[in-house]
Amino acid sequence: MDVTVAVDCMGGDHGPHVTVPAALDFLQRCEAVNVILVGLQDEIKVELRKARRELAARTAIQHASETVGMDEAPASALRGKKDSSMRVAVNLVKDGAAHACVSAGNTGALMAISRFVLKTLPDIERPAICSVLPTVSGRTYMLDLGANVDCTAEQLLQFGVMGAMLVSAVENKERPSVGLLNIGEEEIKGSEVVKHAAELLRASGLNFYGNVEGDDIYKGTTDVVVCDGFVGNVTLKASEGIARMLGTYLREEFNRNLLTRAASLAALPVLNAFKRRFDPRNYNGATLLGLRGIVVKSHGSADRTSFRIAIGRAADEARSGVLAKITDRMLVIQENAA
Amino acid sequence: MDVTVAVDCMGGDHGPHVTVPAALDFLQRCEAVNVILVGLQDEIKVELRKARRELAARTAIQHASETVGMDEAPASALRGKKDSSMRVAVNLVKDGAAHACVSAGNTGALMAISRFVLKTLPDIERPAICSVLPTVSGRTYMLDLGANVDCTAEQLLQFGVMGAMLVSAVENKERPSVGLLNIGEEEIKGSEVVKHAAELLRASGLNFYGNVEGDDIYKGTTDVVVCDGFVGNVTLKASEGIARMLGTYLREEFNRNLLTRAASLAALPVLNAFKRRFDPRNYNGATLLGLRGIVVKSHGSADRTSFRIAIGRAADEARSGVLAKITDRMLVIQENAA
Repeated sequence: MDVTVAVDCMGGDHGPHVTVPAALDFLQRCEAVNVILVGLQDEIKVELRKARRELAARTAIQHASETVGMDEAPASALRGKKDSSMRVAVNLVKDGAAHACVSAGNTGALMAISRFVLKTLPDIERPAICSVLPTVSGRTYMLDLGANVDCTAEQLLQFGVMGAMLVSAVENKERPSVGLLNIGEEEIKGSEVVKHAAELLRASGLNFYGNVEGDDIYKGTTDVVVCDGFVGNVTLKASEGIARMLGTYLREEFNRNLLTRAASLAALPVLNAFKRRFDPRNYNGATLLGLRGIVVKSHGSADRTSFRIAIGRAADEARSGVLAKITDRMLVIQENAA
Repeated sequence: MDVTVAVDCMGGDHGPHVTVPAALDFLQRCEAVNVILVGLQDEIKVELRKARRELAARTAIQHASETVGMDEAPASALRGKKDSSMRVAVNLVKDGAAHACVSAGNTGALMAISRFVLKTLPDIERPAICSVLPTVSGRTYMLDLGANVDCTAEQLLQFGVMGAMLVSAVENKERPSVGLLNIGEEEIKGSEVVKHAAELLRASGLNFYGNVEGDDIYKGTTDVVVCDGFVGNVTLKASEGIARMLGTYLREEFNRNLLTRAASLAALPVLNAFKRRFDPRNYNGATLLGLRGIVVKSHGSADRTSFRIAIGRAADEARSGVLAKITDRMLVIQENAA
């Protein structure tokens, strides 16, 4: 099927001079896709003028007069800016004009607008933020990464279903394994909520692995790691923090003196290959999962490459039929529970 | 003052042939310290026979007939093994024969025994596990790392006091800064418990920085990072996991072909310096903080070097007067609140 992605061109730190070229790069790399560029049309047109004609032909512009600020309160964005590029992009998904949308704008506002406009899927209480992370052996999907501070056991079960269906749909895995993030592998560990969530997951018919610990995320022990948004957010940011620290250490050691600088020249191709391999840009694009529509959140600071990757993720998910899979699976679980 | 450390020689993956030489290394490096070696006396004596006489003279042996297994349930260790090396080592602290004790045995059992034997300090509801972590610019202390799954705001305040007094006592910092781990810096972020804890910390008279995020841990934004044990444990293990993954990536890239292997030879001194710098062995020794005595938990897999470092940590804390500092500060806080 031909997929159309609505791109919020105004969100993020850079705006149209990064988002529009990224969208054009995406069109060039992928067939059977179109984009709707949402935002201030004059600014978008300036960028489009530089584009090759056959790519520009696969774009449409949807003017939106307002922009949500990166630090704007979600409620103000939701109530006060009905014509923001973010809101208009989500509306395009709601109206069926686009199959998915992408924004690098502020997460809280995007979540509030998406929930209000699209609503959640049947039997899903709250959407979760889901991202792909690199592991020693491949990749793993983790959710929630910050949308829900306190979660019930039922919500953690729903996250498990959503994550498993996403992996199944996008990665073509028959029965993706689901791990529940905890402080020990034993069943007796963890809070009451987590223990109850383990029971629900065990009875869900999903391929539930059981408890996993923090280091299992990057070991790739399971295809999906489920946790509440507080734990997920802190864990993800701490991981980014230590990766950055180790990068700093490595740079400092190679810059220590003439000899180490000479060694760094010899090692440069290896170090670059190493850097590429866990380059966070390759993992850009977190899904707001559980909505009646595909909404992908890009890092605010995304450059042209990483914003293009986030658009690609939105297109892949739109094509995958993940939302129907979630709905079907939740129905089975509800029926079994009844 | 002369400090005596009780060393549980049987705990951990290795036993006396690692713990005893580590204790002797510690004696060699530090003056005005003695150790009591606790465990099966025959096994300890075998190790001591290899020691230099002046070092052996600064040791005493305390026989203990039982050993707590690494996977043993805390309750079974507590109730069933009154003569375990772990229990006897903690008893030596209780009786005043030692100023501190160290064990590489199972964390749950050590915590249960320590709480039962030593009790908590006045106005401290529960002990927390506190560790030193490397940062870009130095080091930071984080607690709780897994002793308390669900925490009240009052307990988080107590952790803040305990962490700040530890840094103040051991690192000689006048007013160490305290950060509260959260999912955003804004005051409105986080769970109700965390928001309330922030209020208590703000009113505590501590040098409270406010909320910090996951990446602030390794940035070294504050001297102390406070969180509940679930978040702390998962965060720490995830950090270890990603560090290990990056190490694997780096090794794999340097082993890719003849050319990259040649580069690795050139870069070897730099890579070794890099490795030394964040070597987790240098940070071995987590404190069970909040007890009426100093108890340090070593990694179970600690080798001779890292177990020696954990013993050193116990001696430093015993000398620092941290427990009196915690008690005094809690008294001030209670009086101000009254």
